[in-house]
Amino acid sequence: MADIQGSKDRLSENLQQIITLLNKQRLVENLLHRQDMSRSDAAKTNLVESLVHKQNLAKLQQKLDELHPADVAYILEALPLEQRLDVWDLVKVERDGDILLEVSDAVRQTLIADMDSDELLAAAEQLDTDELADLAPDLPKDVLKGLLENLDAQNRARLQSALSYPDDAVGGLMDFDIVTIREDITLEVALRYMRRLGSLPGHTDKLFVVSREDILLGVLPLKRLVVNDLNAEVADVMAADPVLFHPEDLADEAAKAFERYDLVTAPVVDKNNKLVGRITVDAVMDYIRDESESDKLSMAGLREEEDFFSSVWKSVQNRWAWLALNLMTAMIASRVIGLFEGSIEKIVALAALMPIVAGIGGNSGNQTTTMIVRGLALGQIASHNMQSLISKELGVALLNGLIWGGVLGLIAYALYGNYQLGLVMTGAMTLNLLLAAIMGVMIPLVMTKFGRDPAVGSSVLITAVTDSGGFFIFLGLATIFLI
Amino acid sequence: MADIQGSKDRLSENLQQIITLLNKQRLVENLLHRQDMSRSDAAKTNLVESLVHKQNLAKLQQKLDELHPADVAYILEALPLEQRLDVWDLVKVERDGDILLEVSDAVRQTLIADMDSDELLAAAEQLDTDELADLAPDLPKDVLKGLLENLDAQNRARLQSALSYPDDAVGGLMDFDIVTIREDITLEVALRYMRRLGSLPGHTDKLFVVSREDILLGVLPLKRLVVNDLNAEVADVMAADPVLFHPEDLADEAAKAFERYDLVTAPVVDKNNKLVGRITVDAVMDYIRDESESDKLSMAGLREEEDFFSSVWKSVQNRWAWLALNLMTAMIASRVIGLFEGSIEKIVALAALMPIVAGIGGNSGNQTTTMIVRGLALGQIASHNMQSLISKELGVALLNGLIWGGVLGLIAYALYGNYQLGLVMTGAMTLNLLLAAIMGVMIPLVMTKFGRDPAVGSSVLITAVTDSGGFFIFLGLATIFLI
Repeated sequence: MADIQGSKDRLSENLQQIITLLNKQRLVENLLHRQDMSRSDAAKTNLVESLVHKQNLAKLQQKLDELHPADVAYILEALPLEQRLDVWDLVKVERDGDILLEVSDAVRQTLIADMDSDELLAAAEQLDTDELADLAPDLPKDVLKGLLENLDAQNRARLQSALSYPDDAVGGLMDFDIVTIREDITLEVALRYMRRLGSLPGHTDKLFVVSREDILLGVLPLKRLVVNDLNAEVADVMAADPVLFHPEDLADEAAKAFERYDLVTAPVVDKNNKLVGRITVDAVMDYIRDESESDKLSMAGLREEEDFFSSVWKSVQNRWAWLALNLMTAMIASRVIGLFEGSIEKIVALAALMPIVAGIGGNSGNQTTTMIVRGLALGQIASHNMQSLISKELGVALLNGLIWGGVLGLIAYALYGNYQLGLVMTGAMTLNLLLAAIMGVMIPLVMTKFGRDPAVGSSVLITAVTDSGGFFIFLGLATIFLI
Repeated sequence: MADIQGSKDRLSENLQQIITLLNKQRLVENLLHRQDMSRSDAAKTNLVESLVHKQNLAKLQQKLDELHPADVAYILEALPLEQRLDVWDLVKVERDGDILLEVSDAVRQTLIADMDSDELLAAAEQLDTDELADLAPDLPKDVLKGLLENLDAQNRARLQSALSYPDDAVGGLMDFDIVTIREDITLEVALRYMRRLGSLPGHTDKLFVVSREDILLGVLPLKRLVVNDLNAEVADVMAADPVLFHPEDLADEAAKAFERYDLVTAPVVDKNNKLVGRITVDAVMDYIRDESESDKLSMAGLREEEDFFSSVWKSVQNRWAWLALNLMTAMIASRVIGLFEGSIEKIVALAALMPIVAGIGGNSGNQTTTMIVRGLALGQIASHNMQSLISKELGVALLNGLIWGGVLGLIAYALYGNYQLGLVMTGAMTLNLLLAAIMGVMIPLVMTKFGRDPAVGSSVLITAVTDSGGFFIFLGLATIFLI
């Protein structure tokens, strides 16, 4: 049985086997090549080498054929470009499409760049319309045009409509593998119809009950189909009140509904309640995973998933915007310090202490912002509880400021023997934490108000404010009370 | 139909209605109370008020009864403690268990604290064994003991075994809602058996085919049951090679297998291949969501999900460890600066410029670390590609250092008219970015080597190194070349 225990081990075992075969392959090719060069080719040795060569290739190809498309994708992603393309050339053309769907965007681009139009067309023809829609944005224009011409009218219309929705809309997630039945037949007739179909699309857990005009009337879970009396009518057994979606609904809302109501598939209908497609839980799960990955990446300032083996130049492009932004905020903070160079010249201890005030403010502000972003995403933060939230965050900041600011004040006093410096430290810390609390609540709220995603960028903004603010408060207080 | 369009709007609408009803309720109670106090109670007014009071309560209760447990959970989480408990008291006792399962850990604790042992026992008795296992850690010891006594032998054994697995093992995710059949019956007999059962557990997409000793022989998807010839035997139609799990497998590996192979349910077997339970996609999806949430929280230094309306003191406890850790690393950086106070006294511009070098190093190091953590989680980073990864990261760092360091050097020169200061700036920036690249790769690797989760804590460590390192490099170079 396909035992999953240690599935990560199994995956890296596959990878190791492929790498070993690839290395052998390269060795043999080098040998063949060297013989050509030295012209010392005894025909016999040459033949043996070339046989080994072919055996090796066959072994590699066989191993690849045995693997699930997702597992081949995994291997392609883990190989440097040259080896990756060697493996890619060995993959059977009828599996290309499925594998292209599984690899990450960055790796997909390297694979597509290696294929000519005919290969791409052949790969694409193996796919369903909804899968094509996922692949389409990465295809060259002429291939896409060729594809559209090859499709029949219904599928062309479906592809064009799927392409018209953004990735974060239900229309971008849905597929068209729907099995429909009428409401006025008995379960026995329905079962006979199923047997005539011979097979059902993946993830089919329910049939869609529609009128002659394709208007959705309800859904019939397979579970109900198999447990109920064969003489009952579909209309009596179906769920007439299913959770349903519209193509323009946000994918995020659909994902939450899938989790909330534990769905496996759900119908998608247009404005007139006409059935246009379905969403399956695997599409939803991929969406959730992608979102969580891209949140993590963007929090660290990476624009998109990086191919581990992309060129240095590509990586620099992926990362430069974030660094430039941070450089700008750091420059501002630096100019704030510049304002107080006179004070620092007099009490040089200020230079050593000021980064602490700024840093802790940033940490604390990020904690607050993370909470607020989460509450906004869940829709649990709104006007009715705003006030109690802000007072709570201010309370937390005040307490932390007095505790940690107090500790730091004592340390500063111990280090520099200046109790006034200690007091300024405690005061600056408390004020900067209060600033961090207020900005930590306000920044995500204002971003939401202006239609921006608060998960992206809140962290840079809050750090910029608490850095410059922290330097200003600390050096300002010091200038007033110590100089 | 249960239209999900604008489901977030629908949720906040529910919330608003409940709040309105609660406020009315409080108004009426205040009135009643005031009349008691003033002793001016005309019996008639009192009666009217108390009728309104009852009507209001009934309306609230009716509204709550109509909502899905997940939706009631949402409302409870969005309400401050006092109102939350008012609503909780109105929820029917037989729904308490389901709702407790849906709310977040922090909110669950506030609800359980409000219930006595009898209420908790009554709520728990409504739940399945696997659901009980999820709730058990939050229950008082005496309630848990009472619960175990009330269960029959099989369910007690199941509950104890489920409790013995950690949350991140398959054993902690699995449930026991399994429908089994024998392999030597025909599909017709199987269908008759289904109809006798009358209903199937949620998410049943396949039946488990077992021997008389409960050894798993294969699975029969409902899809195959309904499309195949009624005279075929189960053994001929079943999938004999399903993806399966063991209770001690990592939940994370199971989640990846569910995504990779698009599963809805999968059997869980013990060492002897005996069927012990199943995993469903909704448990996997909850697990993925929880993991991604807790990653985000821990990246911002929050130990756990916070109840928005918890006390200031509870929030401080949730956040203090991170602040203390950052305070320590900031102290170290501050002492590094302290070493160079003499140099800063001579060239005060160093104080204004040094935070830039440290800050950009931290940002760049975090980008590298995020990439590496991701590659490690996917199992795509291993010894065979380590070297090419490090050289690539060093290349990116060198390029960024020369570009951004050059820009900063020019700015420093423009601001302070000292070209040597500009050169020191460029050099320090490049060196600190190289340090960030090396540590950005090494820190997650070393953490993994020592069995720690690199996603937690890598960011603090890298920032600590690039802060202290940045100050040391910049001030050190300045002391050598400028003083």
